[in-house]
Amino acid sequence: MTKQLPALDEIFAPRGVAVVGVSPVGRGFATGILSSLLAAHFPAIYPINPRYTEVMGLPCHPNLQSVPGVIDHVVVSIPAESALSLLDDCAAKGVKSVHFFTAGFSESGVKERAELEQEMLRKARAGGFRIIGPNCIGLFVPKSKLVNTAAVPIETGPVAFISQSGGHASNLPVYGSPRGLRFSKVVSYGNGLDIDESELLEYFAQDSETEIISAYIEGVRDGRRFFKALKTAAARKPVVIYKGGTTEAGKRAAHGHTASLTSSVTAFEALCRQMNVIQVDDIDEMVDALVALRFARPAPKGKGAVVMGAGGGPSVLASDEMEKAGLEMPPLSKEIQTELLKFLPLAGSILINPIDAGNLATPEAIAATMKAVSRLPEIQMLIYHLGFHPISSWGGGRFATPAFLEPAIRAIDAVKTSSGKPVVMVLRPPLNIDEMKDFLAAQDAFVKADLPVFHSLRQAGRAMARVIAWQKRQS
Amino acid sequence: MTKQLPALDEIFAPRGVAVVGVSPVGRGFATGILSSLLAAHFPAIYPINPRYTEVMGLPCHPNLQSVPGVIDHVVVSIPAESALSLLDDCAAKGVKSVHFFTAGFSESGVKERAELEQEMLRKARAGGFRIIGPNCIGLFVPKSKLVNTAAVPIETGPVAFISQSGGHASNLPVYGSPRGLRFSKVVSYGNGLDIDESELLEYFAQDSETEIISAYIEGVRDGRRFFKALKTAAARKPVVIYKGGTTEAGKRAAHGHTASLTSSVTAFEALCRQMNVIQVDDIDEMVDALVALRFARPAPKGKGAVVMGAGGGPSVLASDEMEKAGLEMPPLSKEIQTELLKFLPLAGSILINPIDAGNLATPEAIAATMKAVSRLPEIQMLIYHLGFHPISSWGGGRFATPAFLEPAIRAIDAVKTSSGKPVVMVLRPPLNIDEMKDFLAAQDAFVKADLPVFHSLRQAGRAMARVIAWQKRQS
Repeated sequence: MTKQLPALDEIFAPRGVAVVGVSPVGRGFATGILSSLLAAHFPAIYPINPRYTEVMGLPCHPNLQSVPGVIDHVVVSIPAESALSLLDDCAAKGVKSVHFFTAGFSESGVKERAELEQEMLRKARAGGFRIIGPNCIGLFVPKSKLVNTAAVPIETGPVAFISQSGGHASNLPVYGSPRGLRFSKVVSYGNGLDIDESELLEYFAQDSETEIISAYIEGVRDGRRFFKALKTAAARKPVVIYKGGTTEAGKRAAHGHTASLTSSVTAFEALCRQMNVIQVDDIDEMVDALVALRFARPAPKGKGAVVMGAGGGPSVLASDEMEKAGLEMPPLSKEIQTELLKFLPLAGSILINPIDAGNLATPEAIAATMKAVSRLPEIQMLIYHLGFHPISSWGGGRFATPAFLEPAIRAIDAVKTSSGKPVVMVLRPPLNIDEMKDFLAAQDAFVKADLPVFHSLRQAGRAMARVIAWQKRQS
Repeated sequence: MTKQLPALDEIFAPRGVAVVGVSPVGRGFATGILSSLLAAHFPAIYPINPRYTEVMGLPCHPNLQSVPGVIDHVVVSIPAESALSLLDDCAAKGVKSVHFFTAGFSESGVKERAELEQEMLRKARAGGFRIIGPNCIGLFVPKSKLVNTAAVPIETGPVAFISQSGGHASNLPVYGSPRGLRFSKVVSYGNGLDIDESELLEYFAQDSETEIISAYIEGVRDGRRFFKALKTAAARKPVVIYKGGTTEAGKRAAHGHTASLTSSVTAFEALCRQMNVIQVDDIDEMVDALVALRFARPAPKGKGAVVMGAGGGPSVLASDEMEKAGLEMPPLSKEIQTELLKFLPLAGSILINPIDAGNLATPEAIAATMKAVSRLPEIQMLIYHLGFHPISSWGGGRFATPAFLEPAIRAIDAVKTSSGKPVVMVLRPPLNIDEMKDFLAAQDAFVKADLPVFHSLRQAGRAMARVIAWQKRQS
């Protein structure tokens, strides 16, 4: 007989979490998740391992039944061979969800392991609980202090992420966090034995804590259900999808990774276009698209961009990249160029759009230039970049200091307010220790001011073009 | 009457250099070049400025004539209005070349400034000397200790770079240097009033110190001469070109930057294909292509790649990226997979190609895996990557230490020697200070071992595919 299964909302807010397979020595996943839960101050954590009585200062229990408190969620990192007996314990304890980090199931290509997986699902149905995975890193729910790695930001935010890959489930928050992205819920679901991409999409479409949905998907279990869920979700919220396994080699890798049978890429892409889903080609592009959706505010009303910064070569590059990405760079009229010459020099400058002038490295010149060009009706967004210039030498070495950043950000805010147009920042990351400090200080100041920061002109152009195309089709 | 003009070889080896427009205060270009020449120990440097008697500890002269020693090369950073009288001084002193950093000539779009430029050329011809620029950063010749910024590597190497952009002329050495690129001569030629891209290509085609030619070009002055020079150069040496101004916006920017009238992009690309020139889309891609040409040794004999590293998601990405770039990822047979299982685990691994296994983070597993797969005739190159894993935690935190890197590099060298196939390293740069130190240590160790290091799977795939396509057409 199948019991009533708990709702996902309950699973995302467990009262107690058991971690099975912890060890006071070594660097395993269970030990890592335990220390992450401790660092995040999750209130009721129960290490489970019959070989120890204490792990990280917490009492360690021999099995689930010997824990006196409530256990809603169980994190499992023990060999696949022990999975079934553990699930009997889970049923006896009355848990709501079991997350298997453990791999070596259907994705191994071994027939017996695929059968074992199906038996696990039967036990979960009979026991009235859900399975997350196997072969994944499970749940990250900042609001519930439920974390799976130490590096993720614990503040809540409006972005949900569904990921078939455990690595990407932590990569996206880790790479997105310094650029301001914060998350409602991140679910790594691996082989998707029970909870899968379709169910998660249906959930996030109606989740009031989620404004933007992102997903890394290798294969879709139930195409009909998935595309119905995607259609509903994409009609309500922006949905960004990175589809892994788009080539023959990628499909083979995906099958070996999460036992995914990847669908036809052409069909998938056509459906995404039809449903106005933003498609990206890797996690970096996903971060970029999410940053553009979240922080390019007010939302740009068209493709016209003005690019300003310094360096002749980078300005030529900027123009090529923006136009290749699908943005437009309307040439500035003689009148506006004459106005710019009041505060920008003639020698060494380009004023046609892009605007390249050495003294765009002062808050005053930035403010005056932005104010002048933001009034133009053909311009719908302003992009400021440093080209290849090291941040540490920009603005006479003052760029990364509050004395530069504060007036510059005030000026940018004023331009955004007066023009109703977004301002986009492009900062090239340095590859040395000395400049990294200044890079992070500058990035942090812009991110705190709710500005979108990109790490290359190409990335900025592509992300903005994607978001503008999405908005146009959505309206 | 036109005097005999000095050869470029003489210009690249000046006996004395005057820097006109230096100042003991401020941060101008002339002052920067002076301190760079001092740091590089150029033997005979003469600061020129009538307002000072000493700059940076050197006697400062009021004009060229008052310098007692020989001056072969003059670096100029004074207002455009003073250019003609300075050229009279140059003629009187008998110099061989004058480099104008000074901008504000034809590229400003002002008619009188374009005429001034032509008058400068007439004076140079009459005076028997050459002009570099104007509107550029001039010459970087490591062998002659002739430098134009402080950040460039002063060791000599086999790469020549011709750049219409001054920024890119320093960006390429700065970004290429940590990845092992060293240069024969780098020439930034700006508006190309006298010495231009065609003459430089002709020179580097026959220069015995140059094995690889790279060029950043916005516009071509004399199409016929340029394409003849390109054909000769490309038949003898690999030529990599980044063409700036490939879009309408880019063309306008290029015209404002160096007064370039960019040619038809389609025609340019067709000619490059025909001549087997490697085309790239930015300076980063140029660094990648040069690194592949220089360090992917022995040169790969075909497109078959095996990718190994860790992370399921990154392995799917790797496969997609390599195949999209035009490489092939031959699936590994059951036999070789069984052999890999002797030292790689079943659970959590992908063995089909890509190879993803957690313990590929030990020198022993790396050595055994590379040895096994490098024997396969369908594999022509080996690509090792860390996915998104932070270098600081890879290999139990030992990856960036000699205890890990030394045996790993020995194993890689042995595989290269025994198989005659190149090994390619992909290290993702971190965006924080703690991990940057480890990243740089690892990159440096691989670069010192003459290995090609790329910063993303996509970049590695594209660069390798470009070089393989070039080799195939060249043979």
